[in-house]
Parts: sequence; C-alpha cells; structure tokens
Amino acid sequence: MIFLARMDVTFPAHLTEAQIADFQVREKEYSGQLQSSGKMAGIWRIVGEYANHSLFDVESNDELHQILSGFPMYPYMKIKVTPLAKHPNSIR
Amino acid sequence: MIFLARMDVTFPAHLTEAQIADFQVREKEYSGQLQSSGKMAGIWRIVGEYANHSLFDVESNDELHQILSGFPMYPYMKIKVTPLAKHPNSIR
Amino acid sequence: MIFLARMDVTFPAHLTEAQIADFQVREKEYSGQLQSSGKMAGIWRIVGEYANHSLFDVESNDELHQILSGFPMYPYMKIKVTPLAKHPNSIR
Amino acid sequence: MIFLARMDVTFPAHLTEAQIADFQVREKEYSGQLQSSGKMAGIWRIVGEYANHSLFDVESNDELHQILSGFPMYPYMKIKVTPLAKHPNSIR
Amino acid sequence: MIFLARMDVTFPAHLTEAQIADFQVREKEYSGQLQSSGKMAGIWRIVGEYANHSLFDVESNDELHQILSGFPMYPYMKIKVTPLAKHPNSIR
Amino acid sequence: MIFLARMDVTFPAHLTEAQIADFQVREKEYSGQLQSSGKMAGIWRIVGEYANHSLFDVESNDELHQILSGFPMYPYMKIKVTPLAKHPNSIR
Amino acid sequence: MIFLARMDVTFPAHLTEAQIADFQVREKEYSGQLQSSGKMAGIWRIVGEYANHSLFDVESNDELHQILSGFPMYPYMKIKVTPLAKHPNSIR
Amino acid sequence: MIFLARMDVTFPAHLTEAQIADFQVREKEYSGQLQSSGKMAGIWRIVGEYANHSLFDVESNDELHQILSGFPMYPYMKIKVTPLAKHPNSIR
Amino acid sequence: MIFLARMDVTFPAHLTEAQIADFQVREKEYSGQLQSSGKMAGIWRIVGEYANHSLFDVESNDELHQILSGFPMYPYMKIKVTPLAKHPNSIR
Amino acid sequence: MIFLARMDVTFPAHLTEAQIADFQVREKEYSGQLQSSGKMAGIWRIVGEYANHSLFDVESNDELHQILSGFPMYPYMKIKVTPLAKHPNSIR
Repeated sequence: MIFLARMDVTFPAHLTEAQIADFQVREKEYSGQLQSSGKMAGIWRIVGEYANHSLFDVESNDELHQILSGFPMYPYMKIKVTPLAKHPNSIR
Repeated sequence: MIFLARMDVTFPAHLTEAQIADFQVREKEYSGQLQSSGKMAGIWRIVGEYANHSLFDVESNDELHQILSGFPMYPYMKIKVTPLAKHPNSIR
Repeated sequence: MIFLARMDVTFPAHLTEAQIADFQVREKEYSGQLQSSGKMAGIWRIVGEYANHSLFDVESNDELHQILSGFPMYPYMKIKVTPLAKHPNSIR
Repeated sequence: MIFLARMDVTFPAHLTEAQIADFQVREKEYSGQLQSSGKMAGIWRIVGEYANHSLFDVESNDELHQILSGFPMYPYMKIKVTPLAKHPNSIR
Repeated sequence: MIFLARMDVTFPAHLTEAQIADFQVREKEYSGQLQSSGKMAGIWRIVGEYANHSLFDVESNDELHQILSGFPMYPYMKIKVTPLAKHPNSIR
Repeated sequence: MIFLARMDVTFPAHLTEAQIADFQVREKEYSGQLQSSGKMAGIWRIVGEYANHSLFDVESNDELHQILSGFPMYPYMKIKVTPLAKHPNSIR
Repeated sequence: MIFLARMDVTFPAHLTEAQIADFQVREKEYSGQLQSSGKMAGIWRIVGEYANHSLFDVESNDELHQILSGFPMYPYMKIKVTPLAKHPNSIR
Repeated sequence: MIFLARMDVTFPAHLTEAQIADFQVREKEYSGQLQSSGKMAGIWRIVGEYANHSLFDVESNDELHQILSGFPMYPYMKIKVTPLAKHPNSIR
Repeated sequence: MIFLARMDVTFPAHLTEAQIADFQVREKEYSGQLQSSGKMAGIWRIVGEYANHSLFDVESNDELHQILSGFPMYPYMKIKVTPLAKHPNSIR
Repeated sequence: MIFLARMDVTFPAHLTEAQIADFQVREKEYSGQLQSSGKMAGIWRIVGEYANHSLFDVESNDELHQILSGFPMYPYMKIKVTPLAKHPNSIR
C-alpha cells in the first residue's frame, strides 16, 4: 500500500551543529534501513528546500505512523501524507 | 532528472460520456508509452480524487513540458510540477 | 484501518430536480449498504453545508478508492481523505 | 450533539522531556475519563503528525469548550471544531 | 446555544430577475420569522459583499442545520458556521 | 455603526502565570466597561480556541481603533475587523 | 471616515460587448459623481488586473454599502473593504 | 524599471479552436514586437501549465498596464505583477 | 507613479519598551519627511492591527525600495507592494 | 535549463550585526561568482521585501540544488523553485 509523504525539517535555534550532525547521521541510518527493507520505496530532495518527498510501501496506517514517528528528526519535521491507490493507466 | 507532478482532471460539462471515454482510451495509451520508455517512472491515483501523482525521468524542463502538454487530457488538467534532486540518504 | 473523509457535493446547473432526486435515492442506498457492511463506520452532515464527514474502515487504499469512486454522486463530489492511526490515548 | 475536532500539539522549546512526559500522562488520564463517560466518542492519530481527530458527544457548546479547555496540553494545542448534524443517509 | 454564521450568496447565471426577486421576498419572510421566534438573534450585511453575518440561538446542531437548510436561497449559499460559548468577560 | 471583530490571543513564552493572570483581570475590567457603555454589544468565546468574536457599536473607525488598541492584551492579540451594515431582512 | 476597497470585476460569458460597453459608460458616470462629491477620495487601476483600489470617505458603514451596491457593475464585482483610522504619523 | 509578471491563461468553453488559434497568432505577434522593442525582456513557459513568467522593462506603471492590457488574450488572462529593484549583489 | 503598500510591524520579544519608543520617534520623523516631500501621499492605520496602508508617489521601483528599506522599523516590517496605474474613471 | 527562484531571508534573533554583515559579504561574493559563470542569469530585489527573484541556467536539478544549498545564507532562506521551459512566443 503506497503513500506519498512530504517532510519539511526545521531545527530549533538552540541545537548545536554537533547535535544536528548527530541527528543527520542517525537519520541516514534509519532511512537506509527503511529503504533496504522495502518499506521506503524512494526518497528525493525537493530542490532548494530542506524537505523531501518520499514513497512508503506499508501494510497499514498504523505501520506508517510507527515508521514516520520513528525518524530521529521526527520532532522537528512537519509531515503531510497522501494515500495513493493503483492508477488504471499504470503498467506495473 | 526526476520531477514529481500532481495532475487534477476536470472535464467541462459539455463533453459527452463517449467523448470522455475516448479521452480515457487515448490517455491510457499515451501514459503506457511514457512508462514503457522510462520517461514516466510511476503513476498513482490519489485516493478519492480524479487526480494522480506521477514521477518523470527526463533530460530537461523542455522535454518535460513537451511530454505533459502532449497528454490528450492536457487541456482539462491542472498540473503542478516539483523538481527533485538526489537525496543524501537515498541508497539507490 | 480508519480514514476520515470530507465530501463536498456540487451539482452542475444542467441537472434537473428529478435527476438530483434520483441521485439522492441511489446515494442513500449505496451509503446504507456501506454502513451495514461496516465499511463506513459513520457519516455526519457538516452543519450548514452540502457536505459530510465520514469514517471508513477498510483493508487498503485501493479498497477505499474503489468505495469512494463508486458513490453515485462521485463525479460531483470533491473528496479529501485523511489516513488515521490508533491513538495512544484511545481506550478502545 | 456531535462535534469533530482537530487538535494539533506544539510544545514550546523550553519544556523539558520530563515536563512533556508528565503532560502526556495527565493527557492520557483526562482523555480516558472523557471516553469512559461517553463525552469523547473517539480519538485517532493523524498519520505522520502530532495531531488527532476526535469526536465529541456533548449537550452544548459551553460544555464542549469546558471539556476542550480542560485538556492538560490545552495551552499548547491549536483546535478547530466542526459542528455535525445527523446525516439523512446515516442508518444509526 | 449561540452560533455565528457567514452566508455568501451566488446566483447562477440562468436565474431571471423575477426569479431572484421571488427568492428575495421568500428569504425576507423566512428570515423575519426566525428573528421573531428568537432563533436568529441578529443579521448584518457585510459591507460591499452579497453576504451576511448572523447569530443563531438554537437547541442543537440538528436544529441549526434544519434552519439553515430551510432558507429559500440555501442552494445558492455558501455557509460557514462557528460554534460560540459564553465568554468569561461577558456581563450578560 | 456595527463591526464584527475576531481576536486571537497568543501570549509570549516569557510571561509568567502571575503576569498573565494580571492581564486577564485588567482585560475583564476593560471589557466590562465597554459592555456597560454599550460600545461592545457582545462577546463570545470561539469553542476550543483562545479567541473571541465580538460586536462593537461605535461612532467611527477612529473610535473603534482607539477602543481595540486600549485592550490590556492588545500587544498579544491578532484582530480582524469586518464592517457591517443594516441588513434588509433585519427586523430590528 | 476612510475605507480602502479592492474591487475585482468579472463579467459573465453571456454579456455582449455592447452590454459591457454600456456598463462601462454608466460606471464611469457613477464613479465621476462619487469623486466630485468627495465620497470617493481616489481610484487606481491595479497594474495588469481588471481591478481597482479605491478610497472612500463616508459617514457610516451603511452609507458605504449603499454607495458600493449602487455601482452599475456591482453584481459582477467582488469587493473587499478595509476600515482605516488616522495614523499617528500622518501629518494631515 | 523591471517587473516580473506571471500570466495564467484560461479560455472560456465557448471559444472555437479556430478562434483560439487566431488569438495565439496575434499573441505571438504582439509578444514578438514587445521583445524586439526591449519592453519585454524575457518570457518563459511554466512547465506543465498554460502560463508564463515574463520580465518587463518599462518607464512607468502606466506603461506596463497599457502593455499588459494590450495583449490579445488579456481578457482571458489572470496576471500578477511584482515590482523589482536592483539587487545589491547583481553584477550587471 | 503610485504604489500602495501594506506594512505590518512585529517587534521581537527582546526589544525593551524604551527601544520601541525610540523606534517610534524615529519612524514618525522619517514618515513626516516623506509626507512633506510628497513621496508618501498618505498613510492610514488599519483598524485593530499594528499595520498601515500607505500610498507612495515615486519615480521608480528603485526609489521606492530605497524609501521603504530606510524606515527605522524596516527590519521588523513585513511589506507588500502593489503597483497602481491611472484608472480610466479617475477624474483627477 | 532555466529555473525561477524566489528566496526570502529571515535571520534569527541571536545573530549579531557583525555576523549578519559577514554573511552579506560572503553572499555577495558567492552570488557574483555564480553570475560570472553564467549559472545565475539574473537577480533582482523584490521591492519592500528582504527577498529576491533570480534566474538560474543549469544542467540539472541536482546542480541547481547544489548551487542553492551552497549560498552562505541558505540556512536562513526559504526558497521556492519554478521550472521554466522555452516559450513558443520567445524570440530568443
């Protein structure tokens, strides 16, 4: 079951550069695992923004929320989720 | 080069059901060719809406506009395009 | 799996009162079946608007789109879907 | 009398994790009591957001405001309330 | 129980002036009865717009929807309803 | 001359509870005087929000701005004013 | 008492060029009289739009609504009114 | 003096393909003259939309409005104009 | 050449009352000079808001930006500028 | 390949004037290099705002994101990018 997410990241002013770097390391690891498992089907940077569009392939809304809220940067993200269905013109 | 598009379709009231059906047949064919060629990397229905999110993999903005404006239903579509870049956390 | 939908209905000017009445009869029947089957967990009128909020309990995004696009008035509806997950404070 | 609420929570930066945890404990207790009493007919997490949709069944606008403003996290919530009426197609 | 409503009127192009005048006569009568009964506590024209703000004093959401949907011009109105509660600073 | 106002209050994080309580006492007093004088024709809490809708009956725009900017909490309010005229259907 | 208005004009498709020209003649005459009388303190075209910003100097909200609703093109205008007060930095 | 414009074109349903083609021929001619004269410093298609962004280099707001309102398709365009000034980082 | 500006002022929390008072003194002086020179053709308070609408009569976009960015409170202002042209119905 | 960008700059309150001045020096240098290389085809100040519109001529979305994220002030910018294609009426 496919969902499109848009995630915008905003770090609060009190975080140090070291803290942000640490978040980014953990985020990359978490994101890599999701991609390896197939749960995250793709992630792209939105040009010019600290934001991404990503595709998730999950079993349920609950699983998707669990995944999203597990991102290390989750407290600093604004996420919008769009549920997608098979398109009649898709050849896959 | 990847772009995300959202396309919303609104048919004017004067179109007959036969005309709409004809549009849909041609749209499916056009869409299928784009997918076979790899130019369209995916298309999904937005749940509950006569709209889709789709991914395009093209050489240039000009090529993308040529592809989008070639959709049979183009005159009845409202399209928003978001340019995407490689995400540092992508494992692909 | 629960989704909240908001549906706004706008009939085009060319529909006759008889046609609208017919739509409403078929809509009521379709809606009743969805509720009896448990697929639609609730439907409420938004006060002052020709619109509703409704809750759906379905197996997948595809099933939800199939249900929504099956409403007799679907061509005249604008629908927005919000995916919901279990809330940690829910006692159910 | 049914109302749909959407509540978005934003904690200010100065709250400690312990303070937030305390809020969450008290919130859960308050929310549980409202559900046990039937005043809150349901609460769901909006996927990917620190927000919920909930249904309230109350006697009056005043009662609803009293309930909402009694949430421990109320000072940190943005709440939007939509009044709902019985839908003619509802079978309940 | 008090609600604030904003009603915007848009007549479709196919209505004749006589039809519109007839709507206005019936609207005035309906509105007058609501005011006499105390259900409508006030109505004001929004300066420069074919729109009003009005206050309703009703027993329930269902009664309010019944009243609003009974306006002769209801099919041509866009209505937004805001539920109001007693304000702690009100001296009434 | 009637105006509808919507006032949203947001206190900055640095205010203490005592300071806020003091603001609320002074606000209530100021608001009460305005109501006693007839300048403020009504004030209602918007359900679920730290906001109100209120009606003012004043001689001029200048008088209204003087009144609004005199609220003790004015620096923390976002106010939107809508000028109202007599409605042809009003029976008052 | 000063008000800023923004008026956007949209003619329906069924009006003939002759009808539109007639509206424009009457509009110009009405607008000229308002300016001569001092009720309209200024009118400017918004560059690139069939719209204007104008300033009105009137005795009351009722008078302003009467003036605005008297424009020949009023049925085809969307008007937004902003009440203005004397600015402390104005030297007039 | 530089202005950025965004122009969105929407043709009404009653125009024939021949009428639209005629508009496009005249538009191209008018646009070409503006570019040759240096008044229009550039025009680009917005990818996926029947819209453009264009740059104008004119002497005054009045001249710009005269130019914009002279476009053959002007009645079917929605135009938004942004005034631009020299940027301190510009090397031109 | 006329431009309409809307300026909204928001002071950051760290400014003292004395600092704000100093800004206001300098703002009043700067604004007075602009009005005396004829560059600022008018300024009005928006009722209920810490904001103004003002009219500027300048030679160019560059001059307008120079004037606006010279306001003492400029760093705390959000400004929106609308270019205006002569209206065919203006009698001036 | 041309893109239009709009960049809005907001400095956090904790930056000193010296820090801001340093950012501006580095920004000017970076921007100048981009213009000299032809990658940035133009940059203009939006009148009255701490913002610019700029045109970029790049090989790919990835190159554009690399350029944009390399601006010294990037962490304090909100950027919106619009992909542009050749316009059929362009004479260049």
